[in-house]
Amino acid sequence: MRIAVDGMGGDNAPDEIVKGCVEVAKLIDDEIYVLGIEDEIRRELKKYKFDTNKIKIVNATEVIENDDAPVKAARTKKDSSMIKGLSLVKDKTCDFFVSGGNTGALMAGSLFILGRIKGIDRPAIGMTYPIIGGGMSFLVDSGANSECKSSNLLDFAVMGSIYMQKVLDIREPSVGLVNIGSEEKKGTQVLKETYQLLSKSSLNFIGNVEGRDIPYGTADVLVCDGFVGNTILKLSEGLALKVMEFLKDMFKSSPITKMSALMMSNKLKDMKKMFDYSEYGGAPILGVNGAVIKIHGSSDANAVKNAIIKGRQYAENNVVDLISDSIAKLEDLTAGE
Amino acid sequence: MRIAVDGMGGDNAPDEIVKGCVEVAKLIDDEIYVLGIEDEIRRELKKYKFDTNKIKIVNATEVIENDDAPVKAARTKKDSSMIKGLSLVKDKTCDFFVSGGNTGALMAGSLFILGRIKGIDRPAIGMTYPIIGGGMSFLVDSGANSECKSSNLLDFAVMGSIYMQKVLDIREPSVGLVNIGSEEKKGTQVLKETYQLLSKSSLNFIGNVEGRDIPYGTADVLVCDGFVGNTILKLSEGLALKVMEFLKDMFKSSPITKMSALMMSNKLKDMKKMFDYSEYGGAPILGVNGAVIKIHGSSDANAVKNAIIKGRQYAENNVVDLISDSIAKLEDLTAGE
Repeated sequence: MRIAVDGMGGDNAPDEIVKGCVEVAKLIDDEIYVLGIEDEIRRELKKYKFDTNKIKIVNATEVIENDDAPVKAARTKKDSSMIKGLSLVKDKTCDFFVSGGNTGALMAGSLFILGRIKGIDRPAIGMTYPIIGGGMSFLVDSGANSECKSSNLLDFAVMGSIYMQKVLDIREPSVGLVNIGSEEKKGTQVLKETYQLLSKSSLNFIGNVEGRDIPYGTADVLVCDGFVGNTILKLSEGLALKVMEFLKDMFKSSPITKMSALMMSNKLKDMKKMFDYSEYGGAPILGVNGAVIKIHGSSDANAVKNAIIKGRQYAENNVVDLISDSIAKLEDLTAGE
Repeated sequence: MRIAVDGMGGDNAPDEIVKGCVEVAKLIDDEIYVLGIEDEIRRELKKYKFDTNKIKIVNATEVIENDDAPVKAARTKKDSSMIKGLSLVKDKTCDFFVSGGNTGALMAGSLFILGRIKGIDRPAIGMTYPIIGGGMSFLVDSGANSECKSSNLLDFAVMGSIYMQKVLDIREPSVGLVNIGSEEKKGTQVLKETYQLLSKSSLNFIGNVEGRDIPYGTADVLVCDGFVGNTILKLSEGLALKVMEFLKDMFKSSPITKMSALMMSNKLKDMKKMFDYSEYGGAPILGVNGAVIKIHGSSDANAVKNAIIKGRQYAENNVVDLISDSIAKLEDLTAGE
């Protein structure tokens, strides 16, 4: 397998990106193409011992910055690490691409260069939602589309189910529609329509899921528009952080509580780790004709490593083709009505 | 002051409702009218000693149930405790009404009987959002309107600001628009328009607030549509509960951690209490011509007591009139453009 990695994307690029590539190269037999300004990547690589057959530099003279206007940057910065990385996937030189760069530009670039899977109107970004105490749900869309039609949400459900089966190893994942009540007539017109579409589909649809059920992992795949998805992720992250700060202060109050914090420190760290998105192997851009994985802008070497490992499974299991087949069947079904 | 209380609304009616009325009557000099099936209310009241000048029964032969269709129930069950309670506010017999009954029916009944404040297109339900470690934000809308126009959201901001000033005693409350990014061009078309309206208003608008900022109390008033608001409230509640369960298990792991849990038990209880909505004096239905307070269906006597205490401040400070004045000025402003 050949893997393309955006050496310039994210707050800790290129150092942590390169470090992550070097680390993962010890574990896998694939070739990793690190894209970026050659001198900078080479300087970082010099810090490590690595197999030169496994890590290669692809020079890219431009960098898409976080404050670049996404669509414009994707259209004009053709010699950027991001656009060149996507092109390596397009021409099948690489099996997948990992980037921690500008999310909007990565989405726009994916659309321009790879194109949509036939039948997919709106690609989406899927994100792992950690369940405290163990397990995870998978949330689609996590922020790419603020406003959605019911057909978009159905596509998200299909894509999320396939990802969960093939990459997160959950058989027949249950699908829940994020809504403000459990009854099928709840929520907006779009959600009422989506409820009907999901009910008729072959997915393992379990109905509406309310906010309070989400942290309990009630559904494997959580379907919602990107506005709601983004709010769910960020609110959960913020609340978890706030609770951890509150606990920290509480544990400081006496020698015994301090000691007990030490005794529980592994579990407390576990809890913190649950909301650390670097652990989850990145967020796939679902619905484009190629495997693209977005990692958080603040990703460290560990996040890069995990994203590459999950990405291999994503590419190896032909998730893109499986989505394409499922969406085609969906179209047949709709056409047959 | 005269206060109307729905004796039949909620899972713990009439017992906890009556108990709450008896308890609060010891603290205040007002008359409390408990509405409901006379025999049932009387039977509960018999359990307590109370001042018969302060607590009176108003017979209402019908009950609006939680699974009644809201609009139909509000239209047809004219002799229900809920509809009769609203009528007591309408004809100025009572200063405000507290109910733990069917939320949709209470909203519909408020619209039918009290009517909208002039200029308000969509009344909303405001809800206190607890900040861990202390303080609170106030979230409008918490679930009445799944879909909103920018003018609705502006009204929510105005109503929320007045409520915060007059009932929650926050001077010049800051107003934040719940969005998926801090930049003014973020989010849906409706939110972009709302950003402009809020910027031009005389409110203390501080811009967009993202999910991760909400638990930090970044804004006093959080403005959003009812779908997002409801999701925020329920997700926070669910996540807090899940964290508490996780902590409980963690503390059980050894004698020292058990001891430390005992030592911190007050603070842990505080944290649990923060997400216990019974502490916050209920949720006002904002934008109707009268003071109506919704309490949670699972409210106990303590919640009833707190709602009545906050309700007095709501009525005493003429919040309904102040909203009416502010909305009229807003209309003048818009008309003047």
